[in-house]
Order: sequence, then C-alpha cells, then structure tokens
Amino acid sequence: MSSLRGLYGKGEDQGIEGNFGVDYVIHYRIPPKEKEKAEAAFVQLIEALTNIGLTTAVRCGDKDSLLVFTRLASNDLLARQVYSSRLQDWLQGVRIKAPASDVTQAIKDEPVTEAERLRLVYLLITESRNEGGAGITQGQGQWKYVEAIFPLHNNAFNKEWLHKWSKKYILDQSDLDDIRDKFGEGVAFYFAFLKDYFRFQIFPAVVGFSCWMLMGQFSTFYAICSCLWSVVFFEYWKRKEADLSITWGVRGVSKIQHPRAEFQWDFEAEDAVTGEPIKIYAPIKRLQTQLLQIPFAVACIVVLGGLVATVNSLEIFINEVYAGPGKAYLGFLPSILLATLTPTFSTILMSAAKKLTDKENYDTMDAHHAALVQKQFVLNFMTSYMALTFTAFVYIPFGSILQPFLNFWGKTAQTLTMSEVPLTTRQFESNPQRIANQMYYTTVTAQIINTLTEVVVPYIKHKATVKAKELSSNGAVKSNDQPEEAEFLKRVRNQTGLEVYDVTADYREMVMQFGYLSLFSVSWPLTACFFLLNNWIELRSDALKIVIGCRRPIPWRADSIGPWLTALGFLSWLGSVTSAAIVYLCSADKQDGTVSYITAGGVLLSILLAEHLYFAAQLTVRFVMGKVESPGLQRERKERFQMRKKLLEETVGHVASEKATVEVPGVEKTEQITRQTLEEEARLASIHGHGSPEELFWQRQRGMQDTILVGRKLIAEQSSGKA
Amino acid sequence: MSSLRGLYGKGEDQGIEGNFGVDYVIHYRIPPKEKEKAEAAFVQLIEALTNIGLTTAVRCGDKDSLLVFTRLASNDLLARQVYSSRLQDWLQGVRIKAPASDVTQAIKDEPVTEAERLRLVYLLITESRNEGGAGITQGQGQWKYVEAIFPLHNNAFNKEWLHKWSKKYILDQSDLDDIRDKFGEGVAFYFAFLKDYFRFQIFPAVVGFSCWMLMGQFSTFYAICSCLWSVVFFEYWKRKEADLSITWGVRGVSKIQHPRAEFQWDFEAEDAVTGEPIKIYAPIKRLQTQLLQIPFAVACIVVLGGLVATVNSLEIFINEVYAGPGKAYLGFLPSILLATLTPTFSTILMSAAKKLTDKENYDTMDAHHAALVQKQFVLNFMTSYMALTFTAFVYIPFGSILQPFLNFWGKTAQTLTMSEVPLTTRQFESNPQRIANQMYYTTVTAQIINTLTEVVVPYIKHKATVKAKELSSNGAVKSNDQPEEAEFLKRVRNQTGLEVYDVTADYREMVMQFGYLSLFSVSWPLTACFFLLNNWIELRSDALKIVIGCRRPIPWRADSIGPWLTALGFLSWLGSVTSAAIVYLCSADKQDGTVSYITAGGVLLSILLAEHLYFAAQLTVRFVMGKVESPGLQRERKERFQMRKKLLEETVGHVASEKATVEVPGVEKTEQITRQTLEEEARLASIHGHGSPEELFWQRQRGMQDTILVGRKLIAEQSSGKA
Repeated sequence: MSSLRGLYGKGEDQGIEGNFGVDYVIHYRIPPKEKEKAEAAFVQLIEALTNIGLTTAVRCGDKDSLLVFTRLASNDLLARQVYSSRLQDWLQGVRIKAPASDVTQAIKDEPVTEAERLRLVYLLITESRNEGGAGITQGQGQWKYVEAIFPLHNNAFNKEWLHKWSKKYILDQSDLDDIRDKFGEGVAFYFAFLKDYFRFQIFPAVVGFSCWMLMGQFSTFYAICSCLWSVVFFEYWKRKEADLSITWGVRGVSKIQHPRAEFQWDFEAEDAVTGEPIKIYAPIKRLQTQLLQIPFAVACIVVLGGLVATVNSLEIFINEVYAGPGKAYLGFLPSILLATLTPTFSTILMSAAKKLTDKENYDTMDAHHAALVQKQFVLNFMTSYMALTFTAFVYIPFGSILQPFLNFWGKTAQTLTMSEVPLTTRQFESNPQRIANQMYYTTVTAQIINTLTEVVVPYIKHKATVKAKELSSNGAVKSNDQPEEAEFLKRVRNQTGLEVYDVTADYREMVMQFGYLSLFSVSWPLTACFFLLNNWIELRSDALKIVIGCRRPIPWRADSIGPWLTALGFLSWLGSVTSAAIVYLCSADKQDGTVSYITAGGVLLSILLAEHLYFAAQLTVRFVMGKVESPGLQRERKERFQMRKKLLEETVGHVASEKATVEVPGVEKTEQITRQTLEEEARLASIHGHGSPEELFWQRQRGMQDTILVGRKLIAEQSSGKA
Repeated sequence: MSSLRGLYGKGEDQGIEGNFGVDYVIHYRIPPKEKEKAEAAFVQLIEALTNIGLTTAVRCGDKDSLLVFTRLASNDLLARQVYSSRLQDWLQGVRIKAPASDVTQAIKDEPVTEAERLRLVYLLITESRNEGGAGITQGQGQWKYVEAIFPLHNNAFNKEWLHKWSKKYILDQSDLDDIRDKFGEGVAFYFAFLKDYFRFQIFPAVVGFSCWMLMGQFSTFYAICSCLWSVVFFEYWKRKEADLSITWGVRGVSKIQHPRAEFQWDFEAEDAVTGEPIKIYAPIKRLQTQLLQIPFAVACIVVLGGLVATVNSLEIFINEVYAGPGKAYLGFLPSILLATLTPTFSTILMSAAKKLTDKENYDTMDAHHAALVQKQFVLNFMTSYMALTFTAFVYIPFGSILQPFLNFWGKTAQTLTMSEVPLTTRQFESNPQRIANQMYYTTVTAQIINTLTEVVVPYIKHKATVKAKELSSNGAVKSNDQPEEAEFLKRVRNQTGLEVYDVTADYREMVMQFGYLSLFSVSWPLTACFFLLNNWIELRSDALKIVIGCRRPIPWRADSIGPWLTALGFLSWLGSVTSAAIVYLCSADKQDGTVSYITAGGVLLSILLAEHLYFAAQLTVRFVMGKVESPGLQRERKERFQMRKKLLEETVGHVASEKATVEVPGVEKTEQITRQTLEEEARLASIHGHGSPEELFWQRQRGMQDTILVGRKLIAEQSSGKA
C-alpha cells in the first residue's frame, strides 16, 4: 500500500506527525458582523470543492475562522489530472518524451511527486470554472472570506531536511532534487542558485584574502580576477540553469503562462497558430504607461540619491570635520536619519512601483512579476549601492568638492546652536579607509542583522502571537477537538498564522550581494570571505525560514531564476566598469599620501580596457563552454533522438528495411553488342517514331557493358590520335 | 507525363535546349601516357555507378577526355533516396513534420525540386561505399582521372532568370525560391542576403547624400545614423536568416555535418547519444595547431601593414612633398608597387592559411570551411582596410609623425639620383580630402574593375579557350557526334571548361563592402550611394556569372550565411568605434584650418560613447524585434503544434475524451446525519480496529452535506461565543 501511496505523491503514513492525507487547508474567516453572508459563501465553497472531486472536512480554526481541509477524492482523479497536465507539457514542448499511452503505465513510469500533486490540486481549486477548476481565488469577490489556501508542511521531510543540512558542509544534487520534489522547481532553483553561488565564491574569497594580505585595497590584480570570476560564474549559471531545467523536465515551462486574473483586455482575437481565443490589450497603451518608468527612475535617483548625499556629507562633517561638543552623540544622528528615512522613502516608492505595474496591465503573471522585479531592482540598487558609489566616486577621489556641503553643515550647525564663535573644526581630509568600513558594515553587520530579522524575529513574533491567541481563546477551542486530532489541529492553526514564503525576497538578497561583490569588493577584498561565511549560513537559515517561519509555499514550477538573471548580467558588466574606475581613482589618490594627477583620459582608458576585457572574457568563456555538452543537454538530445527513432520504427519502419534491397537496373544486360548496332537501332527507332530524343540518347548504350565497351573504343581512338 | 516529371525534380522536356535527362556529367581525363590505367579505372567507374543504380552513357570529351553521363535509373530509386533523406532530416530535427508514411504520398505532398534531386544524386555518387554511395571522389586515389563531377545548366531556367531580372528593379521572395529550387539553399542564401542588403542600403544612401550636401565629411549625425543602421541591419538579417531557413525547411541543416574525407583521426569512440561510432582527434593537438594562428595574424599585420605604410608614405612623399622632376611618372610608382606586391603577398599568406587549416585537421567540411574563412577574413581585412586606416588614424590627425618617413624617402631619392643639390620639396600638410579620394577609388573604380574581372574577363577567356580548342582539335571530335546530339555535346564540352562557382568569394566581396560602409563611410558619406548602384548591378552580374561564367554548382543546402555572419557582426561593432574616432580625430583637425587640440581623453570618450550607443541600440533592437513573431517562426510553431496534436489524437486520444466524465465521489450522500452520530461511528470503527487515523479523520464528515452541516454548526457556535 505504501508504495502505491508513493506513486501518487503522498508521503508515508507518519503517525502523529502526519497530515491525515490533507492536500490543502482553506483558512476561512467568519467576521462576526457578516455571519450570514459568510455562512452562505461557506456552503458554496464546500459545494464548489466537492463538484471538482475534492473531499472536504471542516474543523474549528482560531477565533472567528474555520479550517476547511480538502484532499483529492480518488487516486484515479489525480492520475487523470497528472496525465492531462503531462500531455499538455508535451504539446507545449516542455517534455520531449510523450507519456505512455496508458495512464496507469505513465504514472508507474514516473511517479507523481508531492510537488506535482499539490500543484495540480491547487490549480484545480483556483482555476476558473471553464478551465475545469473551482475558481476559488483567495480574498476576491465571492471568496472574500477565504483568507488563505495553503498546503501543510511535511514534518517528517522537514525534520530530516534540517537535520541533514546541519551536518553537511557541501550540498549535492540529491538535496536539490528533494527540495524540488517537495516544494517545486521555483524554490529548488533558488537553492540550486545559492548552492552554486556559494561554491563559486570560494575563488574570490581565496584571491581576496591573498590580495588583502599582500596588496591591500584597490589592487588591479584583484579587480581583474573579480571581473573574470563574475563572467565565468554568470556564463556557468546560464548553462547550469538550462541543464537543471532539463533534468527536472521543466525546460520552457516559463512559456506556459498563467493568465493574470486582474488583466483587463480590449478585445478578443484568435491565436494564429492554435486557434484558441486570446485576449488583447493594445501594446501602445501599455507602452504609454511603461514610459512612466522614466520619471519613476528619476524620482528614485533624486530622492534616494539626495538622501544619501545629504546624510553622508553630514556624517563626514560630524565625524571628520566637526570637533565641537557633543560629537559622541551627534555621531549617531546620520545613522538614525538613514535608518528611518530610507525605509520610509523606499516604502513610498515601492508602493508607487506596485501601482505603476498594476497600471501596466500585464496579461500574464510572469510578465507582471518581471515588471515588478525590474522596478524593485532599480529601487534596491539605489538604496544598496548609493552610499558606496558616493564614497568611491566622490568622497575618495574628489573629496575637495564636498567642501561647500561641509561648509553648509557648519553654518547650519552654527545657526542651530546660535553660537557666535565659529565651530571647532578640523581640516577635512578624505580617507580611503572609509569605503572599507562601509563594506565591512554591509557585509558583516548588515548580514547578521538581516539573518536575525529574517529568521529569528519572525519566529519569535509568531510564537508570541500563538501564545497570545492561546491565552485569549482560553484553550476553549482546543477542548472541542478530538484527542487524536488535537496535536494535528494545533499544528495547522499554527501554520495559518505564519507568513507567506516569498522566494523573490531571497533572490533579491543574493543578487544584491552579488552586486556588492562585483561592484565594490575591489575596495575591500575581504568581502567575499564574509559573504562565503554568510552564504553557508544563508543556505541553512533559508531552509529554516521555510520550515519554521513560513507556510508551505505552493510548489510552482520554474525553468530559471527568471528576471534576476538579467539583473545578474547587468551587475556583472557594471562591475567591470566600476572596479576599473575605483582602482584608477582611488589608488591614484593614495599614492605617497599625496593626491596624484587624475585625468579624464586615465579614467576612460581604464574603463575602456576593463570593459573590453570583460567582453573578450565573455566571448571566450561562452566559446569554451559551448564546446562542452552539458549532461542535461546531452540527455535532451538523447531523448529527442530516441523519441524520433521510436516513432520512425512505429510508423515508417517498412521503408527503412526496403532501402537495403535496391534493384539495380542495367546490370543484367550482358549480351555483347557493338556500338554500331546499337546506334543503328537507335536511329531506326527514331525513324519509326519510337522514343523521345532523351530516350534515344540513353538507348545508344544499353546497360553497363555497352558503356564500358564504347568508352574503351573512344579511349583507344583518342590516344591513337584518330579522334 | 510532364507533371510526373515535375514530381521527381526533372524539368520539362526542352527540345534542343534540354539535357536529355542527364543528372551529372563526369569529366574523365585520359592522359595519353597512362592510357591503360585510365581505361581500367574507367571500367571501375562505370561499374561503381551502375551498382548504385545510375544509368551511364559515354561520349567523347575534348582532347584526351571522356564525358560520362549519368542519371538515376528509375524514379523509384529517387523516391526512396528522397524519402530516406527527408526522414533523416526529421530525425535530426531539421524538419518538424514527419513525411507521410507512404513514399508515393510523401513525394506527392512535396514534389522533389531539381536541387534536391541533384544533391541526392551527388551524395549517391560521392558518399563512401558503406554509406551506400559509389565513393567517387574527384581527383583522389583510385579516381584520380576524374576531373570534375558537375550537373548541367538548365538553359531554359537560366534564360528565363536573366530575362526576368534584367527587367525587374526589385526582387521578391519568389525569385529567391526559384534560385533555391535550382541551385540549392547555399546559393539562394547569398542572393537573399544581397537582396536585403541592397534594400537596406537605401537608407544610408539617402542619409549619406543629404549629409554630404549639408554637412560634408566627418559629420557626427551621419556617424550615428550609420552605426544605428548597421545594428538594425545585422539584427534584421539574423532574424531573416532564421526565418528563411524555416521557410525553406533547412533550419539546423548546418548541424548535419558532412565528414571531411581528409580528416585523420586518432581513435574511434561511440557517440553517447546515438550509439554510432565517431572518430576522435585529440582537441589539444588541434588547439596546438590553432595557436599558430597568432603568428599567422602577426605576419599578416607586419607584412601587409608594412607594405601599406611604406607605399603610402612614398605616395605622400611623391604627391605632396616632392616637387622635383618626373613627378608625373613617379606618381604611378606607388600604385604599381601596391598592385604588384599586394596580390603576391596575399597569395603567399593565403597558401599559408590553407596549409594551416589543413594541419588543423577538422573532422567536418563546415568546420574546415569556417576556419579557412576566418583566416581569409583576417587577410582581406588587412588588404582592404589598411590603407584607409593609415589615412584616417595616422595621416590626417597626426600627419607630422610621418616626417621621418618622408625625410627617409627624400634621402633615398637623393641617393638614388645621386644629386648633390637637395630635392625640390614643398612643406608637407595633411589633406582630409585624401581619405575621400581613397574611398572614391574603393567604391567606384575598384568596383568597376571588380565587375569586369568577375564577369567579363572570365567570359572572354573562356570563349577564347573554346575557340582555341576548336581550332586545335580541328573540328574532328564534333564530326563523330550524332547530329541530334551535336548541339548538346558542344554545350557540355563548353561547360567542362568553365570555372567552379565559389559562393564564398561572393560573400567575401559583400562583407568587405559592408566593412567599408561601416568603418569608413563617415569620411565620405556618398559611399552608400555608389554601393547601392553597384549592388543593383552585382545582383544581376552574379546571376550572369553563375549562368555563363561557371559550371552549375552542386546544390548544397545551408541554413545561414555561415561564418560571414560573425564577420558582419564584428565589422558592425568595429564600425561604431572607428566612426567615432574618425569623427573626433579628423574633424578636430579640420576646424578653422588649424590643428585644434586633440586629447586622448576626447578620443576615448567618443569611442566609449559610440560603443555604448551601439550596445544600447543592439539591446533595444533585439528587444523590439523579439516582440514580433516572424512568419517563419510562426509557421514553425504552428507545425510543431499540429504535429503534436495529431500524434496526441492518434495515440492517446481516448484519455482526453475520458476527462470530461469525472465521477465525483461524496456528492451522492444526502441522508441527514448529525455530527454526534458520525463521530460516534468513527469512534466505534476505531475501537473495532477499522481504519487508520487518516480514514478516521475523513470519516467524521461523510460527503459534502455533512461538511456543510458541521461547518454551519461551528459558525453558529463561534459567533454565539460558545466556542
């Protein structure tokens, strides 16, 4: 029995840890003031679920909510769903091999994973009615009381997962495959990326450490190594990504778009290829909205750039110029300003970005997501790198142009304190160490804070909420539960309170980290060492976050890291430019303690050289990697070949076998005929009206022997000089 | 009958103009001294041809040669060859639709073109015996007396072709399709490229003419337009190429590699995918040979660059400095030097390139060809652009550094003339007009000369040879011919004397022309006007060259313009750099007649800006073009979809129809059961050992109605505050 469960994507029976075979929990809110409405909608909900073939069971939730448990009524139904989904994949070219023509066989050939089962059930619940689903969309319209639809954590797997990873130094493919089977390719791709990124970081960590020991900041050697490394990593990952998507059978899955429910279309048309109706929104209208991205980007630059410039110059004034009273306390002022204003501004800009993306009215989830990620990236780019850019390109090389700013702060301070005597100030001198300090802050302090806020804080918050709820509901709900279910229901109620896992946030963190490494690590070569350490923990803390801090995510599929790949490529390229410029500007400044001569030509030349080194390296790496066939691509080629071969044998096999027995006309004629008689014959035939000129031409020599005979005669004639 | 002929790739019966159904002519040489050997080999030849199913006929050739005519013995044999080739294509993924399972039907669905027929017959003749061919390789080993194997020109088509094109201003797709059907995709791609290139040139011609009228040389506006144009054209062509290859059903055909007969392998291994044996040559050994390309490139630069620098400075000396006697005659000296030395050096270097490529020992014809083209490109690059580079980057901006050269020539001249008095010289002053003159020479004079040498000279030469042969053989051969064949045999004998058509040379000419336009046209904006005119003629003169100047080429397939695409991309990119540099360097020089200040920073900045404009334009154009689905790609998507749909219906149709009738368990239970009784039941079942905890969980509410009932009760309890 248990092996049969395995075929249909159900875990083993896990006793008290198990989920009673529940596929999805629907957290249904009953607002006391809308009891009747909620009740009516609840009945509709159960009916809708039952109609598509789900079994339902209802239990008490927390205060004012119900928990609706659902599972697929039968394995047969699942089998059909799986089969039709796989066929669709094959039709769309995602799979190369068609599934076996028999459903049971197809499932036996490739058992259903938990992720596949859960994905299909989720689609069944949420897809619109004319697509065969129940059309239940969380929190919308008729279903506004549906708080959440989520699968339950597989506790046995989670425990095993955390246990295994806490004891392992290096992850391998099977670890990723496990994640894929339970959480889907979307999450698995994140871990695959993080794993490879971690492995690759060993190189810049080692080089960085050596350079820091031997050459200090701003070393050209480190800049070149870092630039080459980022090229290799980016190209490697592009291939690896394609390879993984083939291994997991999801290549091209991003082309199968999920329509966006909020999309508003102008009119319907017919797809020229499939003949299916498609909804059209005039691209020119979208483009008009998209043009608003330009003022948005300008706003980001002005607001966040201005903030950074202001706060940084203030900080420089206080720390490096100001020598008056209260310096110890004033030193905190810039940090406080930054810590309060940056999130405020980003939140405002982020909500503007969301509104803008909504207005752009994309037809698919992916397009919408990509557009949002793009804007997020611009925002994050500003908040993350502005301060460092300021230090690297203004403060260190051209410190003197900060003087007006510093004077302004000096005057302001004088006005504020209303003192008559000039403030005690020191002569300002730019200090290249500043950027290293900033990098230290970003790589070490910020990452520690980040890990804490990402894992520890939500966990504590959640625990506190649970405790509070338990106290407020006074243990009353619990007493109604059946004893054998009590433990399970408690777990489920816990999970309803958890956050939704958002893989985008995790990607963003890593891509931004890659940016620090690529853009600025030349100013503090130890960066990669700390990132390496951080990412070793990150891999595990992200796992922990999913397991204890979040609801189990819907196991969506993916065939790449999506829009982040573009961001990665952009940062990698930009890194070649900034590294070169930093090396030139900052190391020129440092020489012998005096400001040496910086020319525009020098900056441009170093940028030009670095960029062309980057492009040349990119071409070389692509060329070399293109020579090697990755295992995934090889597997794909093999599958394609075998599929075609099989089809060939099935449908047209008789022809191939026929080919061997070609009859050869012309060989059999062996009678001796002289050229004259033959040509005579031809002439006669022509006189009697037989045969076209073409036939005559070929009839002059009938068969091989004739040709040889005539040929020999001609040879003889030619060499004897008769011809 | 004639329609049946059409199905099998035979033209209509053309009377006196026809080829008597001959597929290939083998020109067989009989050296008087090796008569016996040649005769024995001739017998083997005829036997080999007959064995693979070809009918043969032999006639007299020119002096000391035979003409062996062959054609496929039967349409049946052809049908099988065509079918098996199409199946192979489909297996390799070149075709999306599998051919119909019945041979006759497949041929009816898609009649055989002349090109397909000729290609298959050629493969039959030349492929090795274990691949089912006759293994006849022109001029090698056993077949060393085989001078040539070539198909005969289709005179009716050729006449029609020339007639049509001489009357048409603009070519359309059907013209290309005709070429493809007769000469194969390899030749058709060249004409397709030329046609589109010609169309696109209208833009730079118009802009260039306007700029020349309004702004003169070195205009930034023209440079930007030219750079953007080259981006658009390059991206357009890449897409168009893919599109054409789909339309012609040859997409991916370049992956089907023809093994190179000369390839020498180290050992044999098994292909991991197809299981077929593959021959391996250690890549490291090849890499070692390939490294010799570096000294080769250096040699090209030194030899040809040195020649250009020497001759140009000499020319400048004579024309612009020297004012002594014999100036009128001496003026020709540099041109004579260049005209004699350049071909000499290139011939030597070219033969070195050929030897190097042979040593690189490629396993496929394509790889060999690409490697050769690469080296040719380096050579051509040097010979074509060196003089202009010298003028643009040395003579105009930094004329003064030529002084030592000029002094050297002055001294040399003095030594040569052994005169005691210093030579009469003028003060040297660089003249920006020089580059325009050079460009004029390249675009107008050189192109006219080129057209003459390409078409007229070979034609005259050939006519003369024919005449000479006729005179020498004294009309003796002709008298032996049958009167009804005499005209035909005369034509065939003429064709044996023609050159082999080499599409690579034509590509090279066009790519080099594109280079002039992209790299230097900013110095003489009229360039494109003259190229436009030239290319209108070129399209027709190339057609004329194939028809009257060359043997009919073997109709090879191709899915792109091959290695020239890379060259095109390289020139387009380099153009952005050189144009910017020329504009900065040369226009700075020109201002007010005095040498204004040129800074390294300025050059670098203009290059940096131009290059980034180029890359930004490239990304934009790619993005925009990516949004539009080309007709070819759409067709491919459609075919893929239909093929899969058909297969789906055939093999697994029953499942899809089943899907509609999902039975829904749980709906039927309508009896009224209270929660208590149910839970009681469950408890009882558990006591009696029935059911796992999971079953118990779900049995508490049996069916939809129970769930609704229990849910309502829970809602009531919750809101009444009981829970």
